[in-house]
Amino acid sequence: MEHENRTAADGGTGDYNGGGNGTNPRRIRIFDTTLRDGEQTPGISMSPEQKLEIARRLDRLGVDAIEAGFPVISKGEHKAVRMIASDGLSCEVAGLARANRGDIDSAAEAGLRYVHTFIATSDLHLQYKLKMSRQDALRRAVDAVEYAKSRGMQVEFSAEDATRTDRKFLGEVFSAVASAGADRIDIPDTVGYATPEYVAAITADAISASGGLPISVHCHNDFGLAVANALAGIGAGASCAHVTINGIGERAGNASLEELAMALKCLSHGADDGRGNGVPGKAAYETGIVSEQLYDVSRYISSVVGIQVQPNKAIVGENAFGHESGIHTHGILNNPLTYEPISPELVGRRRWLHVGKHAGIHGMNAMLQEYGIEPDEEQSKQILERVKALGDRGEYVTDVELLSFASEVLGDRGIKQLVHLTGFSVSTGIGTMPYAFVKLDIDGKEFYGTDYGVGPVDAALNAIERITDRTSELRIKDYGLASISGGSSALCEVTISVEDAGGNSVSAKSVGEDIVTTSVKAVIEGINRIMLKSMMREKTKQD
Amino acid sequence: MEHENRTAADGGTGDYNGGGNGTNPRRIRIFDTTLRDGEQTPGISMSPEQKLEIARRLDRLGVDAIEAGFPVISKGEHKAVRMIASDGLSCEVAGLARANRGDIDSAAEAGLRYVHTFIATSDLHLQYKLKMSRQDALRRAVDAVEYAKSRGMQVEFSAEDATRTDRKFLGEVFSAVASAGADRIDIPDTVGYATPEYVAAITADAISASGGLPISVHCHNDFGLAVANALAGIGAGASCAHVTINGIGERAGNASLEELAMALKCLSHGADDGRGNGVPGKAAYETGIVSEQLYDVSRYISSVVGIQVQPNKAIVGENAFGHESGIHTHGILNNPLTYEPISPELVGRRRWLHVGKHAGIHGMNAMLQEYGIEPDEEQSKQILERVKALGDRGEYVTDVELLSFASEVLGDRGIKQLVHLTGFSVSTGIGTMPYAFVKLDIDGKEFYGTDYGVGPVDAALNAIERITDRTSELRIKDYGLASISGGSSALCEVTISVEDAGGNSVSAKSVGEDIVTTSVKAVIEGINRIMLKSMMREKTKQD
Repeated sequence: MEHENRTAADGGTGDYNGGGNGTNPRRIRIFDTTLRDGEQTPGISMSPEQKLEIARRLDRLGVDAIEAGFPVISKGEHKAVRMIASDGLSCEVAGLARANRGDIDSAAEAGLRYVHTFIATSDLHLQYKLKMSRQDALRRAVDAVEYAKSRGMQVEFSAEDATRTDRKFLGEVFSAVASAGADRIDIPDTVGYATPEYVAAITADAISASGGLPISVHCHNDFGLAVANALAGIGAGASCAHVTINGIGERAGNASLEELAMALKCLSHGADDGRGNGVPGKAAYETGIVSEQLYDVSRYISSVVGIQVQPNKAIVGENAFGHESGIHTHGILNNPLTYEPISPELVGRRRWLHVGKHAGIHGMNAMLQEYGIEPDEEQSKQILERVKALGDRGEYVTDVELLSFASEVLGDRGIKQLVHLTGFSVSTGIGTMPYAFVKLDIDGKEFYGTDYGVGPVDAALNAIERITDRTSELRIKDYGLASISGGSSALCEVTISVEDAGGNSVSAKSVGEDIVTTSVKAVIEGINRIMLKSMMREKTKQD
Repeated sequence: MEHENRTAADGGTGDYNGGGNGTNPRRIRIFDTTLRDGEQTPGISMSPEQKLEIARRLDRLGVDAIEAGFPVISKGEHKAVRMIASDGLSCEVAGLARANRGDIDSAAEAGLRYVHTFIATSDLHLQYKLKMSRQDALRRAVDAVEYAKSRGMQVEFSAEDATRTDRKFLGEVFSAVASAGADRIDIPDTVGYATPEYVAAITADAISASGGLPISVHCHNDFGLAVANALAGIGAGASCAHVTINGIGERAGNASLEELAMALKCLSHGADDGRGNGVPGKAAYETGIVSEQLYDVSRYISSVVGIQVQPNKAIVGENAFGHESGIHTHGILNNPLTYEPISPELVGRRRWLHVGKHAGIHGMNAMLQEYGIEPDEEQSKQILERVKALGDRGEYVTDVELLSFASEVLGDRGIKQLVHLTGFSVSTGIGTMPYAFVKLDIDGKEFYGTDYGVGPVDAALNAIERITDRTSELRIKDYGLASISGGSSALCEVTISVEDAGGNSVSAKSVGEDIVTTSVKAVIEGINRIMLKSMMREKTKQD
């Protein structure tokens, strides 16, 4: 059986120990629904080809099952599910179907051997949406499960809005679908309304009502509790969680795969071991997730669906392993565990430091050292004072500014801005391609460049590359734009990464109102940083 | 005493009932640290004036206490804290200080009567950062508390990295600082490493070790558990949570104020009441937060600090009350509670619907009805088919496209694009202001407009406004930009909202490679939508 290695995740043996009590870690099944619930994010659509590529990446990431889509909703969706189902992935592939024969037929015709069928069970949904009685819903659920089983499919049954369903009736439903042959039961917290305690309670109910079937929990994040709720369900014996990459999905989204997988892997659950020595205790759980791929997959999904990840998002946000405060950078430099719960490499990332008004001597000197600069105590104080004064004005302190302060304090160490943007102009419109002209002063010599591009920023960057390629083999590797909503005159933040011929890269940031000019300034900043870095290294070697 | 009405939040009476069991809701104290821990987000700096304005907004929002800053770190920070402390706010104003006399003096000199002092207690921090013994740290803590008390200040003591501190030693520390006169004890989960169970356990420890002092919990979000951890601490008897707006802060940030406040207000904690009827049970907790201001405050902070809120963020994300899937919009139209845990108005927001490949007949017809269009069943099916086909190609379906499909199916209902962009050009650079020219065809007549702005998009929008103001009193209310990282030639997505003289507003979106041209197209799309809307309403009245 092709899925043998993955289905060890639950197996339905009734082995529901809480984990972490000296036993081996319990294997938790990861059911990814980025392609179904994630795609229901308002405004998101993916083409069948995009869905297939995402499915392949999720498979390589090590998920146990993928919900590929909701085949009945459109022709494209049906096609996408069919492509994924027949792609020979290692993980299981499921599709969503309402509890009716038409939807289940559609799933079977898409080539699925695994269907996730659902019907709402809360009085609220029965009265206002389905306009049917509890008993009618129960009959529909049983019929759907029996029908899907008769078509030879693996069946996972969801009682939609389970967390607002009468507990006694919910137990009756789970018991009835178990008798009808369901292979798995899922508990959706459809509007993210449950607390961890309540998810734990109805998970225990479901295990008992279903006679020990494997239980999944499907948690939404409307109050920021999705991951905690999923963990609570798992703690109470659920063997599987429905999750999405970056937590995308309806409204505030679903439990996020990266947060749940890392919480399962790294935290001590229900046990008091490992406290007081900074080393996580024995893991209570394990999953099949290859955690080192998490960041790349997160960025890929973000770019395909166009839903940004906020900087302060756990695990995959840009700031998750960034440090500025003096106390924190000081600790990090001595032992990263002081201010990081896990090593960034574990999720495919790298740590970064930044100086600003919260900076301390240690963090600042660590950054200066990268440029071969080692001020004495008095000099450090003077440089730091200038950094803080700039930060106090609400301004972002770049490396180039840091180096220029160092230069002021240390006297002539040859630290100067190497590249100056002395002229720049860009035009775009309808009936033209965006085109740009730049004039750079590089170490006293003047250079000109002009080029066009798909957008004005692209045109300007191309024009700069025309010059820098000639002079120093620098390449613009990456370009990121963060805008601040609230009006066309709001600030935007541009992050750029520049690479030299030796493969070294630096990133730089610029903030401003004019997106095009701000981008160009960020590039100049990045170019200066990388040139300074290699220059300072040379200098240190000679000293 | 000026803070009398607020300090009822805890009072330190030892009344630590779990809440929700038929008793009155327990009042929880909200300690906002947006201005301190929030500002420690790498790259963020605020000027003293910005900090003061934020403090005033937080005060109006109803927080019980504000941590205004860390006075010793810089002159600007000291000034900001002094300005906030002397502004006559209703809430209490605290400042951070390490456990030493210099930091405490600095706080007192900034005019604070309330200091939040801390020292790390975990062996990891003691060994690698502070390089001192447990007993030395304990002595420092006691000395700091005694000294701050001798200066007449209210003292909140934090044992930094409490959740990785030896539990027995942590109890000793709490007991010692309580004897030294601390007024409050805070439990920081410094690297977001704790589970709800563990926060609950050490909260109970702290209550007992301190002889019943009021306990705060300060939770970080490294594994997405900050809100759940804060709730667990509160469930175990903590009376206060440290939070930030939008959850900003070091790394993945802090527990977010808006999520915690709404979870406290709306969810049934520890109780099984209110299930099965869709109506939340009796609230176990209450806070002083004026929830209707949450969205505005969130947006304000986001724009000041430049940290975006992701669309799928709970409570304040753009999608938190947006719906696309057919099943969801159908439910929402019958009773919003089916797919919303709370009413959006409760947090100062409005619901929105969108059509796309997941759309159903009901949601689509509800949107068409807004334009006075009522297709019959067969016509609805045909329109929906076209919508889904567009979505299947991975494309965003705008209202204008929906209307144009309706027009194709229903025949001539006068649905046409009213405004055409026939010419457009924009320039920017160094030594110039960005300036733009636009040519519009409005209902067959040609109009020209030119203007400058702070950026090229702003210039173009201003130029369009010059025309539309003249013709129809339309105003561009809102402009949002979502970029997709990965290169300067990547796609960007522009969302725009346009308002007419009657206060009606519509939003429109455009996707493209050239950010300036894409923005202009989005505006034209928005203008068309709002004009169509009012035209269709007129038409319906006449029919």
